[in-house]
Amino acid sequence: MSPAQGSTIETPDSLHIKEWLRAYQRIRAATEAICAPLHKEDYMVQSMPDVSPPKWHIAHVSWFFEAFILKPFHPAYQPLDPAYDHLFNSYYVTHGTPFPRPGRGMISRPTVDDVYRYRAHIDRAMEALLSDPPQAHVQEILRRLALGLPHEQQHQELLLMDIKHILAQNPLCPAYRDDLAPTPAHAVETLGWHAYPAGVQYIGHDDTEEGFAYDNEMGRHRQFVEAFQIADRPVTNGEFLDFMQAGGYDKPDHWLSDGWDTVKAEGWQAPLYWVERDGIWHHYTLGGLVPVDMNAPVCHVSFYEADAYAQWAGARLPTEAEWETVAHDAAIQGNFVEQDHLQPVSAAGSTGVLGQMFGDVWEWTGSAYRPYPGFRKLPGSLGEYNGKFMSGQMVLRGGCCATPADHIRATYRNFFPPHARWAFSGFRLAKESL
Amino acid sequence: MSPAQGSTIETPDSLHIKEWLRAYQRIRAATEAICAPLHKEDYMVQSMPDVSPPKWHIAHVSWFFEAFILKPFHPAYQPLDPAYDHLFNSYYVTHGTPFPRPGRGMISRPTVDDVYRYRAHIDRAMEALLSDPPQAHVQEILRRLALGLPHEQQHQELLLMDIKHILAQNPLCPAYRDDLAPTPAHAVETLGWHAYPAGVQYIGHDDTEEGFAYDNEMGRHRQFVEAFQIADRPVTNGEFLDFMQAGGYDKPDHWLSDGWDTVKAEGWQAPLYWVERDGIWHHYTLGGLVPVDMNAPVCHVSFYEADAYAQWAGARLPTEAEWETVAHDAAIQGNFVEQDHLQPVSAAGSTGVLGQMFGDVWEWTGSAYRPYPGFRKLPGSLGEYNGKFMSGQMVLRGGCCATPADHIRATYRNFFPPHARWAFSGFRLAKESL
Amino acid sequence: MSPAQGSTIETPDSLHIKEWLRAYQRIRAATEAICAPLHKEDYMVQSMPDVSPPKWHIAHVSWFFEAFILKPFHPAYQPLDPAYDHLFNSYYVTHGTPFPRPGRGMISRPTVDDVYRYRAHIDRAMEALLSDPPQAHVQEILRRLALGLPHEQQHQELLLMDIKHILAQNPLCPAYRDDLAPTPAHAVETLGWHAYPAGVQYIGHDDTEEGFAYDNEMGRHRQFVEAFQIADRPVTNGEFLDFMQAGGYDKPDHWLSDGWDTVKAEGWQAPLYWVERDGIWHHYTLGGLVPVDMNAPVCHVSFYEADAYAQWAGARLPTEAEWETVAHDAAIQGNFVEQDHLQPVSAAGSTGVLGQMFGDVWEWTGSAYRPYPGFRKLPGSLGEYNGKFMSGQMVLRGGCCATPADHIRATYRNFFPPHARWAFSGFRLAKESL
Amino acid sequence: MSPAQGSTIETPDSLHIKEWLRAYQRIRAATEAICAPLHKEDYMVQSMPDVSPPKWHIAHVSWFFEAFILKPFHPAYQPLDPAYDHLFNSYYVTHGTPFPRPGRGMISRPTVDDVYRYRAHIDRAMEALLSDPPQAHVQEILRRLALGLPHEQQHQELLLMDIKHILAQNPLCPAYRDDLAPTPAHAVETLGWHAYPAGVQYIGHDDTEEGFAYDNEMGRHRQFVEAFQIADRPVTNGEFLDFMQAGGYDKPDHWLSDGWDTVKAEGWQAPLYWVERDGIWHHYTLGGLVPVDMNAPVCHVSFYEADAYAQWAGARLPTEAEWETVAHDAAIQGNFVEQDHLQPVSAAGSTGVLGQMFGDVWEWTGSAYRPYPGFRKLPGSLGEYNGKFMSGQMVLRGGCCATPADHIRATYRNFFPPHARWAFSGFRLAKESL
Ligand SMILES: [Fe+3]
Ligand SMILES: [Fe+3]
Ligand SMILES: [Fe+3]
Ligand SMILES: [Fe+3]
Repeated sequence: MSPAQGSTIETPDSLHIKEWLRAYQRIRAATEAICAPLHKEDYMVQSMPDVSPPKWHIAHVSWFFEAFILKPFHPAYQPLDPAYDHLFNSYYVTHGTPFPRPGRGMISRPTVDDVYRYRAHIDRAMEALLSDPPQAHVQEILRRLALGLPHEQQHQELLLMDIKHILAQNPLCPAYRDDLAPTPAHAVETLGWHAYPAGVQYIGHDDTEEGFAYDNEMGRHRQFVEAFQIADRPVTNGEFLDFMQAGGYDKPDHWLSDGWDTVKAEGWQAPLYWVERDGIWHHYTLGGLVPVDMNAPVCHVSFYEADAYAQWAGARLPTEAEWETVAHDAAIQGNFVEQDHLQPVSAAGSTGVLGQMFGDVWEWTGSAYRPYPGFRKLPGSLGEYNGKFMSGQMVLRGGCCATPADHIRATYRNFFPPHARWAFSGFRLAKESL
Repeated sequence: MSPAQGSTIETPDSLHIKEWLRAYQRIRAATEAICAPLHKEDYMVQSMPDVSPPKWHIAHVSWFFEAFILKPFHPAYQPLDPAYDHLFNSYYVTHGTPFPRPGRGMISRPTVDDVYRYRAHIDRAMEALLSDPPQAHVQEILRRLALGLPHEQQHQELLLMDIKHILAQNPLCPAYRDDLAPTPAHAVETLGWHAYPAGVQYIGHDDTEEGFAYDNEMGRHRQFVEAFQIADRPVTNGEFLDFMQAGGYDKPDHWLSDGWDTVKAEGWQAPLYWVERDGIWHHYTLGGLVPVDMNAPVCHVSFYEADAYAQWAGARLPTEAEWETVAHDAAIQGNFVEQDHLQPVSAAGSTGVLGQMFGDVWEWTGSAYRPYPGFRKLPGSLGEYNGKFMSGQMVLRGGCCATPADHIRATYRNFFPPHARWAFSGFRLAKESL
Repeated sequence: MSPAQGSTIETPDSLHIKEWLRAYQRIRAATEAICAPLHKEDYMVQSMPDVSPPKWHIAHVSWFFEAFILKPFHPAYQPLDPAYDHLFNSYYVTHGTPFPRPGRGMISRPTVDDVYRYRAHIDRAMEALLSDPPQAHVQEILRRLALGLPHEQQHQELLLMDIKHILAQNPLCPAYRDDLAPTPAHAVETLGWHAYPAGVQYIGHDDTEEGFAYDNEMGRHRQFVEAFQIADRPVTNGEFLDFMQAGGYDKPDHWLSDGWDTVKAEGWQAPLYWVERDGIWHHYTLGGLVPVDMNAPVCHVSFYEADAYAQWAGARLPTEAEWETVAHDAAIQGNFVEQDHLQPVSAAGSTGVLGQMFGDVWEWTGSAYRPYPGFRKLPGSLGEYNGKFMSGQMVLRGGCCATPADHIRATYRNFFPPHARWAFSGFRLAKESL
Repeated sequence: MSPAQGSTIETPDSLHIKEWLRAYQRIRAATEAICAPLHKEDYMVQSMPDVSPPKWHIAHVSWFFEAFILKPFHPAYQPLDPAYDHLFNSYYVTHGTPFPRPGRGMISRPTVDDVYRYRAHIDRAMEALLSDPPQAHVQEILRRLALGLPHEQQHQELLLMDIKHILAQNPLCPAYRDDLAPTPAHAVETLGWHAYPAGVQYIGHDDTEEGFAYDNEMGRHRQFVEAFQIADRPVTNGEFLDFMQAGGYDKPDHWLSDGWDTVKAEGWQAPLYWVERDGIWHHYTLGGLVPVDMNAPVCHVSFYEADAYAQWAGARLPTEAEWETVAHDAAIQGNFVEQDHLQPVSAAGSTGVLGQMFGDVWEWTGSAYRPYPGFRKLPGSLGEYNGKFMSGQMVLRGGCCATPADHIRATYRNFFPPHARWAFSGFRLAKESL
């Protein structure tokens, strides 16, 4: 198991603890860098129940190390404030009573400064612990660290999603940052298809291999995947606009029943963050309100919209087994958080190559989020990490423009409810082989 | 394709139309027999949005024949009342505007007598059409009849579910019928397990075979099923009571997150229709309020409760592919509507035999209801039959004590949202092979 | 106290009990006459929580006599079914637990026939009791009968309001009766004003006088009424249409804040039951859908709409003290239920005369429904009759086209929440004297 | 008209503008002093839709001067940011579109620093305008200033109410201030009664007199007040605890119907902010969580609770005319914001004297908030100040511990919905004279 880059070869035993400490410091610093452009007022907003105030995120990821590493294994650890355990627990119901999620925006104290003090307190204790870990527990500490670091990376992506949603409520459309990397202007080519033959595929993370994976990826197993074709890139804003202009949001024909109910109840007429100004479609980005790039992958659409588009286009979404089969061949590179666009961008076309499998947009699959054969929850509170959400959600694959590059894998299973739109979520088409 | 018994060998071409007519008459009469014990007042109640008033059911199943067979193919057909098309359409949004579902209990006219006149009007026209069908359309008529008859059978089961829910609202606990078949009193044996090896399985209905199947069963395809074990009978009321007494409804430990939210929001403490009287668990049945038979399969539990029980018991629910693999070996016999219990009953044990795969209770599987590879919706309004519900629902298998025996198949896919409890729904355990 | 005609002079002591019995029989028969045109299906519908199914009304008014007269005072009375006490109690929380109001439409048993058997059972017992009353209780029996009879008359009006609302849900717009009295076609004259000088007025029912009155009218007291003017007739449909055409429902300017919120939330664009057909305003009446008579008083408007119209017209609604001051001079005659129009009609103009003070439409006043000085609730359950509703409601005066003529008085205080529209409610303007 | 102290004798014409400017500066500074103890994070919270974030309050009161004085009358005024007009309008629908109230907590930009810059910008412009007012408009400017200053004082009280509600959401129970004035410990005497004879009273503000009053107090008119008695002090915490211990919250007997529904829906068991700790009742105050002083007036009760207590005690609430009749004799002194308790306190008893008519707690009356005879709204947006809220609310009188002393009058009409509890609201009993 590696310090969350997923690339080092050493085993936990052999790995010098210093490397883990550096990974810890690197990932903790990345969280703070994401928050650097925020005002204290921004830290307080909970723009919908699914969103958490940034202040809560930065405290909660610290709490994770306190609750699962420092309290059990640091012999001299003193909490900064005993009340924080209640305030910054998220959903670990077997670990005390979590503070109600929709009330997170109500808590002005501890202040932002207090919360950074809490982070510093945790960091000092973690650094002390990792400098001289108790030998009896070192393996368990590293095992938990190997979960706590991707946990913090997940919250980095959530922070960017939530900050975008928070600032988008503001009629002033303030930019999160003015210095994002400039977006390329590639013209995408006509959609191409790649065909895959029928056969048994190995799906899920191989536990015998190096590298971290979540419990929900475990249980490598066989699935028979019938022959299929998959698109060589995600659907673009321009293509999605064709669907809109064909009355896609106005007629129930291509929608799932729940999807159509949602369209009417929410008044959806375009992807989230789109707004028409003087006849031109703009969308809110972390750099402010800009015209929509028709060559970039469509983003901030729900599963319902992805599915309706696919139906309209005479295609369907790939299953997660199909997607993973394809992804095994693809290099893990693309438009990640390190590219500093913080939005999906158009890709330079390369005929015959499967593009943008990783990065840019999380791709909705047609698969409901359910456990793999032999899935077993981790014991205790850590067991709540993934398993209990395996109901009412759909799987997304491939990471996005807000994902750290070393956080994603071909076997990585992300999930959201089918109506969710505030993630950087797009989609790619699939269809049967003739 | 056969007249909805699913057993005849003749092809639509060779089958004498008279046989189809007899099937039509038999199934239509069965609907009316189910309603015979009702008062006119009972016909009017919509006890929750998911429930339809019995009056609506008996009109709607007639409307199906009018809209999809008589109007397109009966050259001289005259509707009894043009307004009925709007009132009794269910969810076919591409066929006019359906009357809002939650308002079905608001419509006192047409009266029950009017609706029976409508049924008789349709029956006369259908009998005339089938006695002398237009040769150019006979195949399409039979194809639609082959859908309309199971559609009516589905509504027979819905009628029984809905009548039970309607009468259960009444503090007087009135019995639907006093003359149901007496329930047997078998003592069930300890749960046994049947093991199945890993391998590729053919799943779904084989289109080249005889016999009707719904569009959602079509697209026979291969799935790799890893080795598993399955219980030799459903979980009983007695076993479920153990879960309750172990605090099953009081602790979040074994519940899916959505499930636990539902438990708290709805105040669930037992299966639907259970009530404690003088320290003894009773439940409302179509024969009135009776003590719970601890040897009968537990019924009226949601997917959430089934899943929580399985987690608690160290097992899981079978996938639908596992269930279908097992069901291929089982005879389609059991406690169906013809047994006239109208509730699940205890089964005589036979060591080593898989029991109660069909009948008694619909069995929740661990599979979300999604399309098979190559699924294609029927064209036009008929295409709304199944496909648009493939979101947010779980698959159930095997039929129940309210299902007509000739309506069920090993490949039959029923589906309900994970919180639904008013169907005759129970479950069977599965687990990995060691 | 008189047998609910309010006109007899005899005291309870001297009045021959036979007269009370005849009043009982007359009023009970009137209830059944109102229900005669209903189908059993109509009896079952609860079209909104405020509406009760007609079956419930006819049972509940019987229950009132059972609970408050027969059980306490009839020595040999045997209830027909002990469960009815729970089912048909309305809101007397100190008398057992009332069955939840919004669930009244869920109860199909007892059937309509059962409920009529219950009425007959009560009637036989009441007739027996009144034929030979226990001397020790005769005064209390008559006192309660003098409340029970107007209670039943109130429910007669509620029945007509509720039946109208129930049938109006039906897209077929069925008529309740085809044989209503034909509506006159008077052209109304321009609105005139009557001026009243300032002075102390006696308001409320004089307890020392003959004739029944509710507890909420009791406590005759003095109010100082400043000089004012009042319109000589209610606002008509034609005048209200002017308001609509001037954009009355489209701009917040003249609305109370709560009223404007309601307009937007409910999408109000016209009075309840109004619908435009081919450019002509129609409204649903108990005789079916007919064109709106522009000379008839506007009806089925909320307090919010009445107040907004008055603001727009540069006037206001009268206070209830102003209304009562004016009404003391007016004869109690008008378009009541006995005229058998069951809707407000145009009145023949008589210059200089205050018209339509009684009958046609209940007139919204500008007064909130609060107790008079010295108001005391009746003891026990009967005390719940009026007092506990003295919050959140506005007073209406004068009776309507569905009110029995002998039920109304100048001091009569009716009340509804400001958003209610399903009563026969209209309004009359007032303004300051210059 | 005076610079909001209500005491100066000079007319607007004669008054030196400098005095108005000093009043402006004094009241503006008081607002900022109230906010001084807040962190930026506290400024952001909207703990329920009725509460506004402090940041919004301090911007909105500035916007009032900008919208109604600077833009119309300051010839060279330049807005700091044109978007603020939309963001900080409250409910003046005739003045553009107000930003939706429940979304006020979503807007992190402008920041708190920005908003203080906005205040300073307004102050500079107001000071410039008042130093050299355009002669043609000076009277109208002063008229509007005479409304804008009490408007800001009202928001000072709202700020304290809202800050209390905001901090009370926090499980840490943080104190707003640690340096509040110490509370006295008087033992209150047994409740005494003062009797008033029947007679015509003049109610409302006399327009011919000096001193500011709101439009809703205008229209001095006569009311006949029947003889009554009034309690010589408000009901105390100790007396209210008697009601609680007598099962006041557990039985419907004494409650208005809407009140009892609210008790059950909200689970009320005590006044807002009360919590039992180790068997002792505490309540949250702006100084933190402290034991309840049984001699202080009960506070943070709704009209429903006040009315239920009064019913239980065999009394009633006074009407607003009764209250005003009594208040004409009382000196305007008491526990106001200047006393710096920020909570009601026990009063030193003085036998035979009516105590605590002003200050401590707003006293619920039994009167619905409706216009006085001849009430006329101000023209334009200013006309929205009071009139449109005259529906669904009850009148409170006398000011409270968060009210500036120079803001209150005997004729002052405050109002809240009957369920509201977050104001400093208590009550005093009345009853009929025998
Ligand atoms: Fe987390
Ligand atoms: Fe159907
Ligand atoms: Fe009643
Ligand atoms: Fe304001």
